[in-house]
Amino acid sequence: MLLFYAPDLCPPEYTLNEEESKHCIRVMRLTCGDEVHLTDGRGTLYRCRIVAADPRRCRVEVVDRKTEFEPLPYRLTMAVAPTKNADRFEWFLEKATEVGVTEFVPLETARSERHVFKPERAAKVITAAMKQSLKAYRPELHALTPFAAFVTTPFAGRRLIAHCGTALSPAGKRYLADSLLPHEDVQILIGPEGDFAPEEVALALEHGFEEISLGSQRLRTETAAITATVMVSVVNTQQPHTPAPNHE
Amino acid sequence: MLLFYAPDLCPPEYTLNEEESKHCIRVMRLTCGDEVHLTDGRGTLYRCRIVAADPRRCRVEVVDRKTEFEPLPYRLTMAVAPTKNADRFEWFLEKATEVGVTEFVPLETARSERHVFKPERAAKVITAAMKQSLKAYRPELHALTPFAAFVTTPFAGRRLIAHCGTALSPAGKRYLADSLLPHEDVQILIGPEGDFAPEEVALALEHGFEEISLGSQRLRTETAAITATVMVSVVNTQQPHTPAPNHE
Repeated sequence: MLLFYAPDLCPPEYTLNEEESKHCIRVMRLTCGDEVHLTDGRGTLYRCRIVAADPRRCRVEVVDRKTEFEPLPYRLTMAVAPTKNADRFEWFLEKATEVGVTEFVPLETARSERHVFKPERAAKVITAAMKQSLKAYRPELHALTPFAAFVTTPFAGRRLIAHCGTALSPAGKRYLADSLLPHEDVQILIGPEGDFAPEEVALALEHGFEEISLGSQRLRTETAAITATVMVSVVNTQQPHTPAPNHE
Repeated sequence: MLLFYAPDLCPPEYTLNEEESKHCIRVMRLTCGDEVHLTDGRGTLYRCRIVAADPRRCRVEVVDRKTEFEPLPYRLTMAVAPTKNADRFEWFLEKATEVGVTEFVPLETARSERHVFKPERAAKVITAAMKQSLKAYRPELHALTPFAAFVTTPFAGRRLIAHCGTALSPAGKRYLADSLLPHEDVQILIGPEGDFAPEEVALALEHGFEEISLGSQRLRTETAAITATVMVSVVNTQQPHTPAPNHE
């Protein structure tokens, strides 16, 4: 299945951009009548047929559509301080998109080693991962957000902050995988290489965040972030026990 | 804490190689009397003191040692088909070393897109990740191993094969996170971009492997591999609930 991202698609027809047209016609060697899939990134999957196999302006027509195609059974916002090395953060965006995230918030923190965040490349990585993993929902990417602005914005769901320092709350730190409940709407904060400052943890606690641990291993920022993403996915995955077909 | 890898260390003294000496003296600006840590990668952590701050041949003397320093509470062998793009496989090796793996087996499979595996770079990545995440146990990296050779080698622990096709066993596929037990000695097989061939799955089943699923998301080889690694880590992690210090 070949999936393209068409946020501005309005049926019955759509013209792929030059890059996608080239991929479709020159690389994949598709031609008139062949099927491709498009998504608006908002949950609708369109099955389309190529009606003009133009390598620069490939036109397709919608055959049918599925709305709410394979939605995640949870909402997860990963608010992560971009790593000093941009590639590491982009790896996280790619992997987390595959595993399942609804929103990415690049956090500007007291100890951040990177204070400029270029969303263009990051957006490309997310789109490519969405297409590659055949998802109809595209995670939302926010602009670089100051830590205080994020944590002081009211939020109804679970708010969790992962840090390596001593617990500051009477409740203390809980292991993330043990503290999650299925189908929660979750925000998880992951700090920069130098961790969150104690003042930041304190501010988060004042605004409804709970302290979590990701276990005893020392993890890089992006490793901690993908580890947390997998834990949320696990807690929300019904055991899809697939019996084998009958063996005659 | 600064950790170096010294597999050939024999107390009381050790001389760091040129690269590590430079890092110690020129980059970190350490000098005589300063402390560094060394590990043999087999579980022993040595606390050492610099006795000759030579930027090319830095000599240290062992102050004390801890044996069996923070061992993993499980044994995990990740047998994974190297990805077409070497960086993606190396990214997995780095992340999995941080999260916790005991052995890496690069698998040569029927549908592998890469049939040459250069262990030198991979070994460097593993060593760097071990040092960076302050581990005293270095995951063992095996040479590229033919699929049949690996699965037909007897193994006493749990044997699990992840694949995307229809289940072939009467037991069917179970979700990995639900099928694991704590403290098991586990082997997990992750296939190449084109998945394992049905004949490979069948051969594995004949040799004690159980079929597993990693959930409903479509994951790249290296994403599937790190996801499985995190699941094993989660099942083996006692909830380290850290109460806060008393609040007077």
